[in-house]
Amino acid sequence: MAEPTICERIAIIGLGLIGSSLARLVRRDGLVGHIAGCARSDETRVRAEELGLVDSIDADPAACVRDADIVVLCTPIGAYSGLAATIAASLKPGAIVTDVGSVKQAVIRDVGPQMPNGTHFVPAHPVAGTERSGPESGFAELFNGHWCILTPPPETSQEAVDRVAELWHRAGMMIEIMDPAHHDLVLAVTSHLPHLIAYNIVGTAADLEEVTRSEVFKYAAGGFRDFTRIAASDPIMWRDVFLNNQGAVLEMLGRFTEDLTALQRAIRWGDGEALETLFRRTRELRRGIVDAGQA
Amino acid sequence: MAEPTICERIAIIGLGLIGSSLARLVRRDGLVGHIAGCARSDETRVRAEELGLVDSIDADPAACVRDADIVVLCTPIGAYSGLAATIAASLKPGAIVTDVGSVKQAVIRDVGPQMPNGTHFVPAHPVAGTERSGPESGFAELFNGHWCILTPPPETSQEAVDRVAELWHRAGMMIEIMDPAHHDLVLAVTSHLPHLIAYNIVGTAADLEEVTRSEVFKYAAGGFRDFTRIAASDPIMWRDVFLNNQGAVLEMLGRFTEDLTALQRAIRWGDGEALETLFRRTRELRRGIVDAGQA
Repeated sequence: MAEPTICERIAIIGLGLIGSSLARLVRRDGLVGHIAGCARSDETRVRAEELGLVDSIDADPAACVRDADIVVLCTPIGAYSGLAATIAASLKPGAIVTDVGSVKQAVIRDVGPQMPNGTHFVPAHPVAGTERSGPESGFAELFNGHWCILTPPPETSQEAVDRVAELWHRAGMMIEIMDPAHHDLVLAVTSHLPHLIAYNIVGTAADLEEVTRSEVFKYAAGGFRDFTRIAASDPIMWRDVFLNNQGAVLEMLGRFTEDLTALQRAIRWGDGEALETLFRRTRELRRGIVDAGQA
Repeated sequence: MAEPTICERIAIIGLGLIGSSLARLVRRDGLVGHIAGCARSDETRVRAEELGLVDSIDADPAACVRDADIVVLCTPIGAYSGLAATIAASLKPGAIVTDVGSVKQAVIRDVGPQMPNGTHFVPAHPVAGTERSGPESGFAELFNGHWCILTPPPETSQEAVDRVAELWHRAGMMIEIMDPAHHDLVLAVTSHLPHLIAYNIVGTAADLEEVTRSEVFKYAAGGFRDFTRIAASDPIMWRDVFLNNQGAVLEMLGRFTEDLTALQRAIRWGDGEALETLFRRTRELRRGIVDAGQA
């Protein structure tokens, strides 16, 4: 009954929330023969060994990818370009390089051209996460029931795409193939803008002169706490997302601000009907999310 | 070992999330002799009886408050002024009227002057909730571990304040006495602004031409889903909050927009350091919320 393994050797570069969750999953379900991990910091490498996340651990990405059939980049996306340069010469012929980044056009620009002939790059984005980070925060079930978006350029080998799809399918994910520009637009609204807004409101609250931090903490149950959870997400990962999806984020931010100005005007002029109409409409949208199983 | 009851008869006007949770709690812990409920719609009255929430049910608030020792207003706050006018003549001497509204200055303005001599008005705000509404959505544990803010005007009877404090204390809440204007400012940032922002972003997403609703639903796990949950909150309740806390909400909204504009500029100019600095700071604030037990 056991399904075949995905490949003999997988290299996971970066063992934070996503990388360590993938390692746990791959280990739990016996999806590969050998898990090679790579982490820059001594602390993460020690924790990864203590947690039994990997079969081998390296500080050097080039050493980690040697002999790997599949290489998964799981660092913040700002590090991808340097990583690609570092590993290129060590990739074995036929190796598949993939990633988990939340932006796809920038990744294709940064990684794609550096991959040697005879290797394959399949850009991927498993859309799942929590606000926690680090090797302790991962869990094998993180991906289950969510969507993974693949954005392979047209010339990508179908076999390589299928192999990456199979990996995430075995993680419990549903697979979607999408144009990278469209991916970046969709994620700007469903993920990047929400994070930006959450970071911003928590910052605004922290700066108030008349309301103490202690008051903000005590009465967070009124709605604020959900924003603080999102705004606790990894600072480097999110810095890199905003720097690398600038166009789509600025576009969505412009629309958001326009709408907010209209709402502000409705409050100032006491237009209860405008408020109620919007609030009823957003409630309907929630029902759609619940129906889609993503609540 | 059984603690004494709070009073003989309580009247709960409005049996939505908060009113029905209070009814359940009062029933479960035997806090009063008789629970009189009031709901305007036939449907809610029928559901309240089916659920066994109350000992008696009325459509008429005046009938409901007759002989009640404590009257709790649990409707959207826009209805308070009319309710106060309706019940005033039927209140028994010594009756305590209290409320659960998320705004306190407007409630003191609307209800206070209409209360007859010999009765007491104690404005209260149990800071707890979920995005659900209606009599089915309540649960007795809703208030447990959260804060209840009382904002009694200086002339309020201490005995009446103590009685209302005791009610919410028995619901598991911690009690804070606060100036009503300060309450409205604190809640503007910890509750009203987060709801406004959530409603707004969900509205922005719903209006996109290039991203389909189905895409918004499918990839909501990236952060958006928390906003849709908040934006599913009761439309009438929230319309009334914004109309009645206009000043504080507009002030907080102004600060939020200012900060967001700075963040937008940082993204446009690729200022990764500014982004990272904010993101690290907000993460610290989250730790404070966790430490305060409100996460």
